[in-house]
Amino acid sequence: MDTRISFLGLGIMGLPMAGHLLAAGYPLTVYNRTVSKTDSLVKQGAKLAATVAEAASDADVVITMVADTPDVEQLLLGEHGVISTIQSGATVIDMSTISPAASQVIYGKLGAKQVGFLDAPVSGGDVGAINATLTIMVGGDAVTFQRALPIFDCLGKTATHIGASGAGQICKACNQILVASNLMGVCEALGLAAANDIELKPLVKALGGGAAQSWQLDNLGPAILNNQLDPGFMIELLAKDLRIVEEALDAAGTVAESTSKAKQLFDRLMDEGEGRLGTQALVKAYEQLGKVRIRG
Amino acid sequence: MDTRISFLGLGIMGLPMAGHLLAAGYPLTVYNRTVSKTDSLVKQGAKLAATVAEAASDADVVITMVADTPDVEQLLLGEHGVISTIQSGATVIDMSTISPAASQVIYGKLGAKQVGFLDAPVSGGDVGAINATLTIMVGGDAVTFQRALPIFDCLGKTATHIGASGAGQICKACNQILVASNLMGVCEALGLAAANDIELKPLVKALGGGAAQSWQLDNLGPAILNNQLDPGFMIELLAKDLRIVEEALDAAGTVAESTSKAKQLFDRLMDEGEGRLGTQALVKAYEQLGKVRIRG
Repeated sequence: MDTRISFLGLGIMGLPMAGHLLAAGYPLTVYNRTVSKTDSLVKQGAKLAATVAEAASDADVVITMVADTPDVEQLLLGEHGVISTIQSGATVIDMSTISPAASQVIYGKLGAKQVGFLDAPVSGGDVGAINATLTIMVGGDAVTFQRALPIFDCLGKTATHIGASGAGQICKACNQILVASNLMGVCEALGLAAANDIELKPLVKALGGGAAQSWQLDNLGPAILNNQLDPGFMIELLAKDLRIVEEALDAAGTVAESTSKAKQLFDRLMDEGEGRLGTQALVKAYEQLGKVRIRG
Repeated sequence: MDTRISFLGLGIMGLPMAGHLLAAGYPLTVYNRTVSKTDSLVKQGAKLAATVAEAASDADVVITMVADTPDVEQLLLGEHGVISTIQSGATVIDMSTISPAASQVIYGKLGAKQVGFLDAPVSGGDVGAINATLTIMVGGDAVTFQRALPIFDCLGKTATHIGASGAGQICKACNQILVASNLMGVCEALGLAAANDIELKPLVKALGGGAAQSWQLDNLGPAILNNQLDPGFMIELLAKDLRIVEEALDAAGTVAESTSKAKQLFDRLMDEGEGRLGTQALVKAYEQLGKVRIRG
């Protein structure tokens, strides 16, 4: 393969993702603010770029995987960012979860330099990144999506072209709406049962067999019953994503009151220093609200 | 089998359920306020009781399947109700969805006459009743539950003993909390996507592959996209169940704000005369709120 890929952002998600691309035989250049995180990949043959501009200068594809909207804007559009050196005809793929509106701005600015741009956020967490089983939701031009498919195939089990630029981020926002409301339902249901002194294990099993079933109930219900609050997916990341959801809702003029309620509860847990627990620690907010012990 | 069963309430759920018991060989007596609904079962060999008291007088097991708490209270505890003629040692099984607190009162009053009582609400709807694939959530004494298992096995695919009297109804309330919050999430997510002019079919497929997945999304998402609003499960029944949920929450001193929000939206749809549509017609409320067309 001679598509030269530069991977920017080697955090808990980016490091294993970049590793899959290197293992697949792509010529890989890596950049990370904390340089030590590039060590393992450089040992395996990746090229280290000292700056973002250097990483972008000879890449066919630049992939970004960082925390939040300003990080992506800085990497891609900043004075010494990707846009300063990337060649026309190249493609940028942002796999971070960021604002859909910001994604569209980036698409426009890169497009003006004949650089393709895909917003391609993922779900599946660090386990999905490590096992290359991520779900990838992609917005942008169909032809750019098709060209990027071999790369996505190294990283996830499904990559879906959702629509035009920003549509991948909107889909991710929808994903987090469902994650938050389904998890709220789990906490509300378990709260009612716990307040009635009902043994929760057979209850969760019975509820999982029909119209009440959800991934959140199946996976986080048992974690809650066993008082396992380690992530999984961290509250501080979901709280960040729900801020993006709210911005997207405002921009669209739509409402999602249950999601807004969830955001309040997660923000409160953040204030209480619980941001690095798994999202199932939402149960703690419901234990306070209902003055009831839900966890086993 | 010589366990004599009297079945009270031959509506959309009760009629097929009673039919399964007759087909299984149980000596069956039936009672229904509208007598004509008993015709088909009487032709197949069921005995017709002219009154509730008559139906209960020689039964080993009385099963009730009616609409709401006052109906069950009237049938079981009313002046000429089951309690007036039922023999000690018999068992009453209420499979309606009613108030957990009322179930416990009934348990106490029947218990004082040495009559066993199980609250055994179901999920799975009319399709589950017809195909004998209901999920049955049971509260009451374990020994009474064990004795009733052969009957439950004729009616559903799983019967779970959740706990003491009322626990079956609490479990059903939890079920409806999850149904309502998961469905709200679906409408909120689709509303955001529709407001961004995103094609919803690939979006729903992508969302169903990970942490956002739910029975509601899998089953009612496509119905919404196809503008199929026929029930399924009727709004007026879910609205009734959510009233029971709110009573149970109040009694327990717990909160479920997303469920309370769902109840408001379903109540509004009732006011607008949409009560006989399927629950997925919740999407109409979100179309109004967000001023966006979500259905295909």
